[in-house]
Amino acid sequence: MQKVFVTGAAGFIGSSLVDRLLADGVTVTGWDNFTTGQESFLSGALKSPSFKLIRGDNLDRVALTKAMAGADFVFHLAANADIKDGWEHPARDLEQNTIATSNVLEAMRANGVRRIAFSSTGSTYGEATLIPTPEDAPFPIQTSLYAASKVAGETLISSYAEGNQIDEAYIFRFVSILGERYTHGHVYDFYQQLIEHPDRLRILGDGKQRKSYLYIQDCVDAVLHVTRNHTAREAKHHTQIYNLGTPEYVEVNDSISFICSSLGLTPTLEYTGGERGWIGDNPFIFLDTKKIQATGWRPKLTIEEGIKQTLRWLEANHWVYEARSKGHQ
Amino acid sequence: MQKVFVTGAAGFIGSSLVDRLLADGVTVTGWDNFTTGQESFLSGALKSPSFKLIRGDNLDRVALTKAMAGADFVFHLAANADIKDGWEHPARDLEQNTIATSNVLEAMRANGVRRIAFSSTGSTYGEATLIPTPEDAPFPIQTSLYAASKVAGETLISSYAEGNQIDEAYIFRFVSILGERYTHGHVYDFYQQLIEHPDRLRILGDGKQRKSYLYIQDCVDAVLHVTRNHTAREAKHHTQIYNLGTPEYVEVNDSISFICSSLGLTPTLEYTGGERGWIGDNPFIFLDTKKIQATGWRPKLTIEEGIKQTLRWLEANHWVYEARSKGHQ
Repeated sequence: MQKVFVTGAAGFIGSSLVDRLLADGVTVTGWDNFTTGQESFLSGALKSPSFKLIRGDNLDRVALTKAMAGADFVFHLAANADIKDGWEHPARDLEQNTIATSNVLEAMRANGVRRIAFSSTGSTYGEATLIPTPEDAPFPIQTSLYAASKVAGETLISSYAEGNQIDEAYIFRFVSILGERYTHGHVYDFYQQLIEHPDRLRILGDGKQRKSYLYIQDCVDAVLHVTRNHTAREAKHHTQIYNLGTPEYVEVNDSISFICSSLGLTPTLEYTGGERGWIGDNPFIFLDTKKIQATGWRPKLTIEEGIKQTLRWLEANHWVYEARSKGHQ
Repeated sequence: MQKVFVTGAAGFIGSSLVDRLLADGVTVTGWDNFTTGQESFLSGALKSPSFKLIRGDNLDRVALTKAMAGADFVFHLAANADIKDGWEHPARDLEQNTIATSNVLEAMRANGVRRIAFSSTGSTYGEATLIPTPEDAPFPIQTSLYAASKVAGETLISSYAEGNQIDEAYIFRFVSILGERYTHGHVYDFYQQLIEHPDRLRILGDGKQRKSYLYIQDCVDAVLHVTRNHTAREAKHHTQIYNLGTPEYVEVNDSISFICSSLGLTPTLEYTGGERGWIGDNPFIFLDTKKIQATGWRPKLTIEEGIKQTLRWLEANHWVYEARSKGHQ
């Protein structure tokens, strides 16, 4: 891994990975369409002579192919990650996640790039019948367009790897990631509400949804640990799939307690009710992470520590709320 | 099921289904882009006042939406089914199978059509670790672009059904189908070779691949039996997935024996070698069909009977070879 191409480089996970790669002496080309990416997340990277930023969209295959020239590894992180509002924009997941992934793979083929890592999601297990859910859980039924599009991306990547079009494919099924540069998800939403009205908090569903979270630096550690060990090269399948999360989960209500105690607030809690926060919400996500732990990786932060770290960052970076509402206008 | 819309209506399975629906008194609109469909397969249907044929492509969403108006059920059978040559046309599976399915679902949403049946494939199990392979087999790794695109189609459909955008979704994972109007697959290829040179037969792989097959009329029976019983309406999931095949498999070598004895030929057999016929070929496909048998359906023909029925049809319809080679020019 000498010259790396990162899609979604200005995003939460992408920019964190870029910073780490540069610190490790890797040459990086970042690619982002800035739909949700933030140029300020790359302010450190842009000072490095080893970093080049190219603005572009994965749907523009010609530009993508040109931008990727010379790379020896692709981290494909660009995606629409808005799982809740899929039915308002049904083409978005198909275009930004499925077709985009096909374009990334074709650009790799055109450039002779033979290794890829892909950010998938624990949502691909739908409403899992086996919890904690292992990578080879029963073939799931998909419950959201977002997860459907991520499964489609996974299957494209594995068909390229198993069809010998590429050499190594790493698919990471993430739980929700949080920490510095986090701009999306329940901690973000709750904190936004509590800035606006510290006395009350509206919660989608009954608050009993059980979810797992992982701290961004632990996530980056895991992705680099696995890809640098070439676990896919010698395996029977050149596609290696890893669940990525902490070996614990919390209730949304626990998470609210962490947030409120950290902020010193005691808001009235208003639940919208029902065991799902939205159509396709999965009331219990807890991944079996034995496979990735067997590689020697361990998360350093607990979920509670990760949530508190996230809050500290949001408190110091209120600008992300303004930036995001502008981006959505 | 009063007014039915059939995509791929001029295809092998589509036209067989259309004929059966018309015989049952259903009003049918057939939709086909005639890439591989044959108008002659619809010569009977076109005489019926209950049948309307509309030429069009699933990638033209506006025309598709217009054509579907008034339907109460969609059989979505149109697909690129050329599994072997995926790497020569990597966009074809994505467009004709994945994006096409998204367009069919959006056309349904626009028209208020709430029920769909979809032709998926046993190839979605990749190289299954569990044989016979049940519907809830371990989450597979995909080995071909074709199967990847079918998984993507499945996941799109299930997300619409689980997200309450439609009421009933039936996904059928077919083994290879054969019988009258069969124009694609190993019996077709072997017979074509034996017309050209009856003294020798070239076999992709080592001939020991084990596969399962189902006779077209049994396939149509099964699809109508399940969809008319509304099994998806009352189930926990509005997506119901059924393996569809015979409870037996044969080696390619057995199939060659059936064909040669039926034709009275003793060709020299030339194997290309290796356990796979092509990249992504699965050397053993055998589906667990307990779930569909529990609905009361049973196949009437064995694999051997189905292969012989197919041969009789090919012998009487040499024109399909000329028609197909023209279509590919």
